[in-house]
Amino acid sequence: MIEKLIAKIQKTQAPIVVGLDPMMNYIPEQIQKKAFGEFGETLEGAAEAIWQYNKAIVDAVADLVPAVKPQIAMYEQFGIEGLKAFKKTVDYCKEKDLVVIGDVKRGDIGSTSAAYAAGHLGRVQVGSKSYAAFNEDFATVNPYLGSDGIKPFIDVCREEKKGLFILVKTSNPSSGEFQDRIIDGRPLYEWVGQQVAKWGEDCMGETYSYIGAVVGATYPEMGKTLRRIMPKSFILVPGYGAQGGKGADLVHFFNEDGLGAIVNSSRGIIAAYKQEKYAKFGAEHFAEASRAAVLDMKEDIKTALESR
Amino acid sequence: MIEKLIAKIQKTQAPIVVGLDPMMNYIPEQIQKKAFGEFGETLEGAAEAIWQYNKAIVDAVADLVPAVKPQIAMYEQFGIEGLKAFKKTVDYCKEKDLVVIGDVKRGDIGSTSAAYAAGHLGRVQVGSKSYAAFNEDFATVNPYLGSDGIKPFIDVCREEKKGLFILVKTSNPSSGEFQDRIIDGRPLYEWVGQQVAKWGEDCMGETYSYIGAVVGATYPEMGKTLRRIMPKSFILVPGYGAQGGKGADLVHFFNEDGLGAIVNSSRGIIAAYKQEKYAKFGAEHFAEASRAAVLDMKEDIKTALESR
Repeated sequence: MIEKLIAKIQKTQAPIVVGLDPMMNYIPEQIQKKAFGEFGETLEGAAEAIWQYNKAIVDAVADLVPAVKPQIAMYEQFGIEGLKAFKKTVDYCKEKDLVVIGDVKRGDIGSTSAAYAAGHLGRVQVGSKSYAAFNEDFATVNPYLGSDGIKPFIDVCREEKKGLFILVKTSNPSSGEFQDRIIDGRPLYEWVGQQVAKWGEDCMGETYSYIGAVVGATYPEMGKTLRRIMPKSFILVPGYGAQGGKGADLVHFFNEDGLGAIVNSSRGIIAAYKQEKYAKFGAEHFAEASRAAVLDMKEDIKTALESR
Repeated sequence: MIEKLIAKIQKTQAPIVVGLDPMMNYIPEQIQKKAFGEFGETLEGAAEAIWQYNKAIVDAVADLVPAVKPQIAMYEQFGIEGLKAFKKTVDYCKEKDLVVIGDVKRGDIGSTSAAYAAGHLGRVQVGSKSYAAFNEDFATVNPYLGSDGIKPFIDVCREEKKGLFILVKTSNPSSGEFQDRIIDGRPLYEWVGQQVAKWGEDCMGETYSYIGAVVGATYPEMGKTLRRIMPKSFILVPGYGAQGGKGADLVHFFNEDGLGAIVNSSRGIIAAYKQEKYAKFGAEHFAEASRAAVLDMKEDIKTALESR
């Protein structure tokens, strides 16, 4: 799957992933109204609104980007109905040949991590049959529990040709509380990054490992160091746009080959129509606003990479 | 909810939580056969088998224990159908007046953590209405992202009178890879424990905080230190039984008042009929074996606490 991701980045010339994190207040009124008209103000109604919103955005941007990243929390909060919309979104994006990164941040011990890995990336056995439950292409994983928590995911990735992005340095303001604490002269996130590189060594595609890392755009200097510590790991970079990261901050996350990083934008793309810059599209044409935002982001990254 | 948990521990005299982590190979053949007969070897069939298995165990132990802890991964691996069985199990346990600890180990940043908190402990807004999606009483949470990831959960707990158990020192063999690393002379898990105590200060019930911690029974010496660092935090203790923790290992997790800890056993209770000790019950009477295992565990902890 890492090869498919790389091929698609090269084809689209856009190391961009669209974060499908639908908040109800992003969804234009006409979509909410129609969904609530059909299903009432229910969890089912919310799920239908999310699905129609996602579908329109995916249709508008699918030819421009290699990948999408649905954030499962935004679906899970609506319970079973929300998770049905998550699955529908994953399936639809795969039909459109997009790489799907499940932003699930799961992580547990042994057999429990194995269950998460089976459910999100692999197959689960039922008697003599087996099924893929959610079937994303990549998943994000939390490293706090150490190798026991990560290995079961790696096993499934090897079997199914899937991949991981392991949290190393997250984009949020308080990520330093534990991640920046100094251990033997180096911050924890560097030790985690080193471990990610090590886990990834046995999981090589042609040029990059399918065991990647998450490093926030909001910490470009740390990104520079981590790029060096994990030369063969793809870095998923959240925090661009709405969280404050800029094109110029991103250059350090990329290798000399122009690869090695994929930058996420969620709100900045899916709710672009709410920004002054794209207000001309109006809520009616929200998906076209998203397309315009992707094109601008592509240009921003391209310019930054060319001028480094 | 922490008051209810304490009252139920005092009433049952059993600081025990039954881990409802159904693996297919735990479920007796007669239950699988019936479920597959009705729904085929499908995800729906697996979910039905899990539900019938859980229901029988809950019926057999509900009067003996204060709480249950369904591990969501074991349901999530079966996709939507599995998650329906999770919800059915949560609802049924609440009907039986059990405290339900959702072992979900979620954790993300800001609005995303808020979505998880709403979905598992709180309510989600849909137009003018609001709904509780999964509605557990407590949830387990991962601290790697720092305060930004925890605060949204705390806010919901305060509003809804629910609670958290935050991962501090997990029970698995490799938990030390990051958790034991030394920062300013103290291991990371102590710093996390100290932060849990601090987060918990503003979240007090009568004698204990509703912000608790997870510390593995497999690390009794560390449990002793953490008990001191977090005097007002309830500790959820996994790792008893199948993972190797014994009654004598548990005493340090309790305070002098005999409270402050609740010990989880999953496999050791729900698959008790597979142990030699309880083989006499046979697969047919698996739920009675679970009841016997709870009674033995209660005795084991009681003896250990009395002889300290």
